[in-house]
Amino acid sequence: MKTRITELFDINTPIIQAPMAGTATPALAAAVSNAGGLGSLGFGAANAEQVLESMQTLRQATNKPYNANFLVHDRPVRDPAKEAAWLETLKPFMDEFDAETPKALNEIYMSFNADDDLLQVVLDERPPIVSFHFGLPTPERTDALKAYGATLISSVTNLAEAEAAAAAGMDAVIAQGFEAGGHRGTVEEPFEDGHVTTMALVPLVVNAIDIPVIAAGGIMNGNGIAAALALGADAVQLGTAFIPCAESGAPDTYRQFLLGDRALRTELTTVISGRPARAIVNRFVDELRDRADEVPGYPMTYDGGKALGAAAAAKGTPEFAPMWAGQAAGLSRAMDASKLMQLLEYETKQTLAMLRDKIKD
Amino acid sequence: MKTRITELFDINTPIIQAPMAGTATPALAAAVSNAGGLGSLGFGAANAEQVLESMQTLRQATNKPYNANFLVHDRPVRDPAKEAAWLETLKPFMDEFDAETPKALNEIYMSFNADDDLLQVVLDERPPIVSFHFGLPTPERTDALKAYGATLISSVTNLAEAEAAAAAGMDAVIAQGFEAGGHRGTVEEPFEDGHVTTMALVPLVVNAIDIPVIAAGGIMNGNGIAAALALGADAVQLGTAFIPCAESGAPDTYRQFLLGDRALRTELTTVISGRPARAIVNRFVDELRDRADEVPGYPMTYDGGKALGAAAAAKGTPEFAPMWAGQAAGLSRAMDASKLMQLLEYETKQTLAMLRDKIKD
Repeated sequence: MKTRITELFDINTPIIQAPMAGTATPALAAAVSNAGGLGSLGFGAANAEQVLESMQTLRQATNKPYNANFLVHDRPVRDPAKEAAWLETLKPFMDEFDAETPKALNEIYMSFNADDDLLQVVLDERPPIVSFHFGLPTPERTDALKAYGATLISSVTNLAEAEAAAAAGMDAVIAQGFEAGGHRGTVEEPFEDGHVTTMALVPLVVNAIDIPVIAAGGIMNGNGIAAALALGADAVQLGTAFIPCAESGAPDTYRQFLLGDRALRTELTTVISGRPARAIVNRFVDELRDRADEVPGYPMTYDGGKALGAAAAAKGTPEFAPMWAGQAAGLSRAMDASKLMQLLEYETKQTLAMLRDKIKD
Repeated sequence: MKTRITELFDINTPIIQAPMAGTATPALAAAVSNAGGLGSLGFGAANAEQVLESMQTLRQATNKPYNANFLVHDRPVRDPAKEAAWLETLKPFMDEFDAETPKALNEIYMSFNADDDLLQVVLDERPPIVSFHFGLPTPERTDALKAYGATLISSVTNLAEAEAAAAAGMDAVIAQGFEAGGHRGTVEEPFEDGHVTTMALVPLVVNAIDIPVIAAGGIMNGNGIAAALALGADAVQLGTAFIPCAESGAPDTYRQFLLGDRALRTELTTVISGRPARAIVNRFVDELRDRADEVPGYPMTYDGGKALGAAAAAKGTPEFAPMWAGQAAGLSRAMDASKLMQLLEYETKQTLAMLRDKIKD
């Protein structure tokens, strides 16, 4: 299949594996790239040293194009009183799991725009595609990446963000629908302005900008891929669909939730990380829902969320793990990534053939 | 185009015009049915006499199949104190428009399940297709309608509702995505369990039940129609796309909002009617958002909302009108309904041909 994106990325099939930090391992990304799609590494939670190691591991497993994803949020304004109060909110849960509540929350991740070490690794390793979430790279960074030949893409969740990305020199945008799993790419509050679904967002964005559009959100199989192409997208990005793959970094409990009934109930929540992200509803999401107004912001909230998730996991419960998943997670299937890629291509062609038969009538 | 729905409804093209109460006139429905689709009349706000008159007007304009839509909500539990408090909340706005605040809120619409006069009109006039929103008809009513040969369909917003509709004997379901304009069909609280988007909901429902699925929400043109068919739907239901048609009952200001930038911002709100419904954000939605917890329930809230909308309209402002619209309203186009039907068919075929060319490569 040829589209503007397969040409732009120099890949064979317009399927991108989403850069899920912690879940998208170099092995997963390499398998997807080797199968003709675009594998991605998510560096939202990595420092320069870890980024370098992941890129080198990936490069040993494939010589195909891949995508390196970075977060470009503004530096947070700290509120010590709010952070201390949030730790008090988490304390009863930490106590439940016999774990010590952290003394303080930390700004555990730096924005790509604020971290020169991250930039230097990228300039040294030269990933062919670099993608951004939560905003756009600075003009200086955009120029530096373009200078070595990088193709740049960013997530958008409404029309204004799409127009801003095109104006900033992005080569393509990922139109991330409301149904997508994980963190919303919405740049600014009110975050509700980015709650636009894939079905509405993709044609609105395709109509408004000239650069190619990658559809993300709710796509799990060939029906979804064909639907996204029908909407005018030149490629699709699938995250949840790749989580149960053998090569992913997901814990067994996460896989079990995705493959069972728990996958049917997801929710946008801010209580895990401090920014809105779609997750399977577990005790973390459910029991802290009413305290969402009190979260201290990203990524400090995530520091607490990770401590609680780890404490609960140590006692054998996945009910406080961040189980990012999209609304169509109920369609999850477990297999090797190379097998899934083959199946997705087969299903897409079957769906297009079914549609072709409809116009024959 | 032939699908299970064109066979079931005996129509030529799998496009249904949504039953928008107040906006879907007999002229609009007749134009859509005469063009080969399925025109619909929305009787959520009508008594038996009005229903009879509309059906007879429609019948004079077409002999093709049409759809009559009814609401099947449970009778509301009244809360006089809450209703009185809500009138106090509306009072400053009523004062702004020099209008008298109503003394009380009324249960202005009856559920089809509770109104024997409505049932009798349907049994007398025998609309070929009868559709339901907010729930399912009682078993007795289901049997009575099937006895004259009616085809029955109902709106669903999650997998559990789809399975319940199939088990209750519905002949097809309308999978109404989160992006859809107007009232959500979600039956029970928490309404958030019905916030599933078209892209996620349609394949989940198609996988789970055997009866045909009609996709609704975010579909405005041939790209959306082709996408819905790719997802496995056997037809589409479009509401917002038909509002700017010459034959609709929409006021000029509503049309202007749909055709301009105001169409880009919609929101699910309960403050207009008491149930969640997607509308263009105007002063009504914006200035009462924070009072949503205080609404007295449907349809009493709607009684107040209509009084306020009328008072504001009398002073020349559309800022308190209920401007139901889906998230893709920014793709609205103004033309006759017959022209729009032709265009939708043409665009759908063009999109399917574009997709066909992709697998040739």
